[in-house]
Amino acid sequence: MGSALLSDLATEIIIPVCALIGILFSLVQWFLVSQVKLSPERNGLSPKNNKNGYNDYLIEEEEGINDHSIVAKCAEIQNAISEGATSFLFTEYKYVGAFMIAFAILIFLFLGSVDNFSTESHPCTYNKSRMCKPALATALCSTVSFVLGAITSVLSGFLGMKIATYANARTTLEARKGVGKAFIVAFRSGAVMGFLLAANGLLFLYIAINLFKLYYGDDWEGLFESITGYGLGGSSMALFGRVGGGIYTKAADVGADLVGKVERNIPEDDPRNPAVIADNVGDNVGDIAGMGSDLFGSYAESSCAALVVASISSFGINHDFTAMCYPLIISSVGILVCVITTLFATDFFEIKAVKEIEPALKKQLIISTVLMTLGVALVSWIALPSSFTIYNFGAQKLVKNWQLFLCVGVGLWAGLIIGFVTEYYTSNAYSPVQDVADSCRTGAATNVIFGLALGYKSVIIPIFAIAISIFVSFSFAGMYGIAMAALGMLSTIATGLAIDAYGPISDNAGGIAEMAGMSHTIRERTDALDAAGNTTAAIGKGFAIGSAALVSLALFGAFVSRAGISTVDVLTPKVFIGLIVGAMLPYWFSAMTMKSVGSAALKMVEEVRRQFNTIPGLMEGLAKPDYATCVKISTDASIREMIPPGALVMLTPLIVGTFFGVETLSGILAGSLVSGVQIAISASNTGGAWDNAKKYIEAGASEHARTLGPKGSEPHKAAVIGDTIGDPLKDTSGPSLNILIKLMAVESLVFAPFFATHGGLLFKIF
Amino acid sequence: MGSALLSDLATEIIIPVCALIGILFSLVQWFLVSQVKLSPERNGLSPKNNKNGYNDYLIEEEEGINDHSIVAKCAEIQNAISEGATSFLFTEYKYVGAFMIAFAILIFLFLGSVDNFSTESHPCTYNKSRMCKPALATALCSTVSFVLGAITSVLSGFLGMKIATYANARTTLEARKGVGKAFIVAFRSGAVMGFLLAANGLLFLYIAINLFKLYYGDDWEGLFESITGYGLGGSSMALFGRVGGGIYTKAADVGADLVGKVERNIPEDDPRNPAVIADNVGDNVGDIAGMGSDLFGSYAESSCAALVVASISSFGINHDFTAMCYPLIISSVGILVCVITTLFATDFFEIKAVKEIEPALKKQLIISTVLMTLGVALVSWIALPSSFTIYNFGAQKLVKNWQLFLCVGVGLWAGLIIGFVTEYYTSNAYSPVQDVADSCRTGAATNVIFGLALGYKSVIIPIFAIAISIFVSFSFAGMYGIAMAALGMLSTIATGLAIDAYGPISDNAGGIAEMAGMSHTIRERTDALDAAGNTTAAIGKGFAIGSAALVSLALFGAFVSRAGISTVDVLTPKVFIGLIVGAMLPYWFSAMTMKSVGSAALKMVEEVRRQFNTIPGLMEGLAKPDYATCVKISTDASIREMIPPGALVMLTPLIVGTFFGVETLSGILAGSLVSGVQIAISASNTGGAWDNAKKYIEAGASEHARTLGPKGSEPHKAAVIGDTIGDPLKDTSGPSLNILIKLMAVESLVFAPFFATHGGLLFKIF
Repeated sequence: MGSALLSDLATEIIIPVCALIGILFSLVQWFLVSQVKLSPERNGLSPKNNKNGYNDYLIEEEEGINDHSIVAKCAEIQNAISEGATSFLFTEYKYVGAFMIAFAILIFLFLGSVDNFSTESHPCTYNKSRMCKPALATALCSTVSFVLGAITSVLSGFLGMKIATYANARTTLEARKGVGKAFIVAFRSGAVMGFLLAANGLLFLYIAINLFKLYYGDDWEGLFESITGYGLGGSSMALFGRVGGGIYTKAADVGADLVGKVERNIPEDDPRNPAVIADNVGDNVGDIAGMGSDLFGSYAESSCAALVVASISSFGINHDFTAMCYPLIISSVGILVCVITTLFATDFFEIKAVKEIEPALKKQLIISTVLMTLGVALVSWIALPSSFTIYNFGAQKLVKNWQLFLCVGVGLWAGLIIGFVTEYYTSNAYSPVQDVADSCRTGAATNVIFGLALGYKSVIIPIFAIAISIFVSFSFAGMYGIAMAALGMLSTIATGLAIDAYGPISDNAGGIAEMAGMSHTIRERTDALDAAGNTTAAIGKGFAIGSAALVSLALFGAFVSRAGISTVDVLTPKVFIGLIVGAMLPYWFSAMTMKSVGSAALKMVEEVRRQFNTIPGLMEGLAKPDYATCVKISTDASIREMIPPGALVMLTPLIVGTFFGVETLSGILAGSLVSGVQIAISASNTGGAWDNAKKYIEAGASEHARTLGPKGSEPHKAAVIGDTIGDPLKDTSGPSLNILIKLMAVESLVFAPFFATHGGLLFKIF
Repeated sequence: MGSALLSDLATEIIIPVCALIGILFSLVQWFLVSQVKLSPERNGLSPKNNKNGYNDYLIEEEEGINDHSIVAKCAEIQNAISEGATSFLFTEYKYVGAFMIAFAILIFLFLGSVDNFSTESHPCTYNKSRMCKPALATALCSTVSFVLGAITSVLSGFLGMKIATYANARTTLEARKGVGKAFIVAFRSGAVMGFLLAANGLLFLYIAINLFKLYYGDDWEGLFESITGYGLGGSSMALFGRVGGGIYTKAADVGADLVGKVERNIPEDDPRNPAVIADNVGDNVGDIAGMGSDLFGSYAESSCAALVVASISSFGINHDFTAMCYPLIISSVGILVCVITTLFATDFFEIKAVKEIEPALKKQLIISTVLMTLGVALVSWIALPSSFTIYNFGAQKLVKNWQLFLCVGVGLWAGLIIGFVTEYYTSNAYSPVQDVADSCRTGAATNVIFGLALGYKSVIIPIFAIAISIFVSFSFAGMYGIAMAALGMLSTIATGLAIDAYGPISDNAGGIAEMAGMSHTIRERTDALDAAGNTTAAIGKGFAIGSAALVSLALFGAFVSRAGISTVDVLTPKVFIGLIVGAMLPYWFSAMTMKSVGSAALKMVEEVRRQFNTIPGLMEGLAKPDYATCVKISTDASIREMIPPGALVMLTPLIVGTFFGVETLSGILAGSLVSGVQIAISASNTGGAWDNAKKYIEAGASEHARTLGPKGSEPHKAAVIGDTIGDPLKDTSGPSLNILIKLMAVESLVFAPFFATHGGLLFKIF
């Protein structure tokens, strides 16, 4: 067996240092973004900037660079968006906070009741000869880490939103100098979010482990059981963030488009449209804050899943701290790799034309994956003993360090494949989206039929990639292997988030350009950034979903181990009814969220119509619309409507576990996993494809595209309908589904001791 | 244990007699339909008709009753539709026939190779002390019953199409006398199909069992193993029938609507539209022939599943023929019950107003279910021993006859619940469809969002109904219980088919009225029939899907038993990758079929546009369009496009079983089952709801509906777009999915001995 090359002390140093490097790097990026001044007095370029920053050799491209009124207008709009987003998030956090406190108490009571709130130690589950800390301690620590996870998630979402609303107008202003400049600002801002999130997640988790270790000492089983609360906290917040933010943004977006683009024939983001501020606020609370919380949740859960499985492997039993921290070291190295990768986009190369944007983003994926492969190999070599034992559903399994390298590697590369497939199906540079655009010739109906078919088809390769990852990693290292494959996919999360967050920032930048009355050229540049952003958003969702599938399976495996059942046999009625009902849950959830978006959008449409009809001079641009009412409609709708789907996800494991027991709950988890993944992927890609089919027609960059356009043509109208339908699919129901599957799994894991002790009431009675 | 009250001789008599009663009853219905004369010379009413037929006390309602030219025109159109349908089916059968012969050879070779084509008897699988017939005999008999099943399926589809194309114009002519008269003709014609199919299926199966018994003698294990080929044959034909017919009908329908209704603003089924004949042919080859084959397949498979499980229970071991035939006796009684039920619709009551149509059809469901419950109780009492043993995955289980009654009963009533829920979500008498119609106010996008959400939501209760059926029937009688629950749901198949087939017949009747230039009143009457038909079509699909879920599970259980594995543990990588890939297959399949419909519709649109543009006087009604080219486009597209999805379904079990082995194949079956059921239900209901939302606006029967209409208003246009999108969902991809899950299960069962012997090559090599 032997032990790792890396000493425990070195491990204790490497992890926080890498986290701090990540935080520092993101602060540097923030500083660079802040060099684009929004105050008209100091408009112009700071002379001290180097060539990677904002020098002025492209000054001839600039437009209205000295037009102070435009800068002031941008600042004003940015301010309105930022205020709207901040105020919404505070409202959201207030409501969700109350819920989280209630749920935290529930966790404490349920887990405390496992051993009747006894304060005495008990024999460990996996090693009966040792004594473990009392269940009451685990209940308390789980509750604390739950709260910690929730707070970190809030922080991730909130900081992401802050930087995004800080960067959007700056991107607009830079777009005056050319598309390359604007790209760098948007991308740097995305990087701020990516690095802050990855580093914070790692740091908080690391601190929590070390604090809990002070109490738990040698009881690593209890220690890492408690830590899973961190994942649950992160995911619970993420659920409400995604659903609430998703409803907010799409109610506003759909409402604004239906009246503005379709009825009144005014452009997207026209300042006369009363819902335009709500729409732009929505991008920040939904696509930025919601997505940040979501990916943080995935990251926290895969780390927790890996740690809890490792704690009962030979690492945990031999108290090999370095090997135990292998998942965290992987994440640490991931931060370093992403720092280097980011420099390729911002410093080593420069984008000069629109057609270079997508390749640059794609290069980010490839570079980070290749570098990370080397990083994983290095970590596997120095941080792991050459071979070690894993406990897998009661059986022991000998694993070599190179096998674990392959587990992480297969997850990493599966992520890349998912990314490429997503790009192929959602970018308008390839035939699938072009075919969808072409089908707009015969109207909206064929557009929708082709779009749905595209989404369904785009599921095939990602599922094979996930299946192969599962098979390889499970064969090598059981459930631990799967957890590590998930972490491998997420190891380059900082880069993934950077290219993902870049999209909504560009979208907002375009909105601000339109509202500030800037020229058509500026809008074209931001539109090009945004089109690439639709693709990267879909790629980000692909990563989120792929990793969610792996992480849920790992959590599911950990749950089964901890709940004390040895097989989950499909051919027992208890499991099968769980499986089929579980496969139904994503549909139920999607029905709720889509209906919510639809209803809220209808209210928004009425309000926007009312304003156009009753405010004199609005259409002529002589009067200002009442933006605040539209913001309020979106806020109210999302707060109210996020409760039922949230409750469905949070309560299902509790109810099923308590009344039907762990077998049925296992079925539910497996069913929702295999069904939810498919809907999530297809919904995201269908929506992304429709959006880009519309942009393809609008941009008119090819002979074929021009035969379909221009804006306002019949095919374009059909494309707008598709885009509108895709909105709730790609930004509300689709991306929330990966939280559904993860959250139910991690919640089951946290409550497993309770279900194992008191669960299955209904079958006990009958 | 004891034996059944009913003697074996009585059983041998009851089954064929009931089948013959069914056939006789359907011939009587056919005769009554034929009393509506299509030849102008003898136009008018035959004096010998009694009050249940066609007396003339409502003669004052008639319109143009003596207008010979209209009758002649109807006859001419009917002829064109009938010829088109017949010619398409022959083409389809030619291609599929070639495939079926190849597949039959494959079955023989694969199953023969299990024991190296040895002609020697071998010890039985479940009772090693007895000798069973050689594997070669089973291979041969399986092949024969496969061919027999395929032929019966062809017969079911073809005869259904014949009666439907015989009845459509007669329904139109009767509509002149009022909606009640037209209803009776359409319903009687549906009944002809329903009874022919139920009775033929039973009779062929019964004859096959008796013929095979001559050879097999006491080897019931081998006998009923061979009989499963019957189910495979039926389902394979059904797959191609559903997919080919579905593509045909929707390519024509979508193509006709896109140009006719949307671009040229001419009514549906206008004779000037070149695709109108293809559209009406499509209803008959898709919704009638395809659906007939489909439900026949379900029926054959659930019977086979029940028989094969029973053959290894105490029935089979003790050679208790009556108890063994319990599934067939249930079906026999089902025919009698349906005969009585039908009389309630056609003879005991009479429909006088449009609003009575839906309740009358609903009453059919309730009456048949209540009567059948009594019938099942009776059969369970007389045909079963008071208690008996079932072998369930190696374990013995004692079952009492009242428990088996509950198994059948729970399936029967779950079917009714699924029917009611489907009605609620797809009929425009209730709020869900009205909400969808209302969302058309804000355009096609909200219509689609609300429609998709409705479909997703409509899955919830049916899945709970299926889950409860599974739990109850499995708890009482293992896999046999589930097979019997499936058969319970299908026991009233004759009535189910009658109300299902009634829909497309009414649809065709409306088309003929329009094409023959009959008045608006006639069209309103047929439209009312058709709106109810949309709901019953959705109900029929609900039954088909619900029973497919149960039957697939039973077949899956039989496959697992026969393949010699004892558990299907989700937490083994081989099973899990099967599960997740299986859950993906319905998406892959849907992507193919929807894309096929889309592409074929685009071709159709081009052709229709070309004709409108190049044939002078076509729009003015002075020239005749070239119907034949459109028929050819639909035919070619469907023949070509049905191959890839067909191959996907047929080859997946073979490839997975051969290369990955039975564990992975088990995962595939479970995954495709739990995922496919959801998509199938939601697709059918979404499509049905959109169609009826459109009809709701067109009919303008309420204050609310009138604010949305009339035809041609913006909300109506949005509704037409939804309807068009729903077409491939509800008539191509959705209903084919239940065949996908059933067919893969029955194919796995038939090939199980081969997979168990030679399967899993890939894992054997590595």
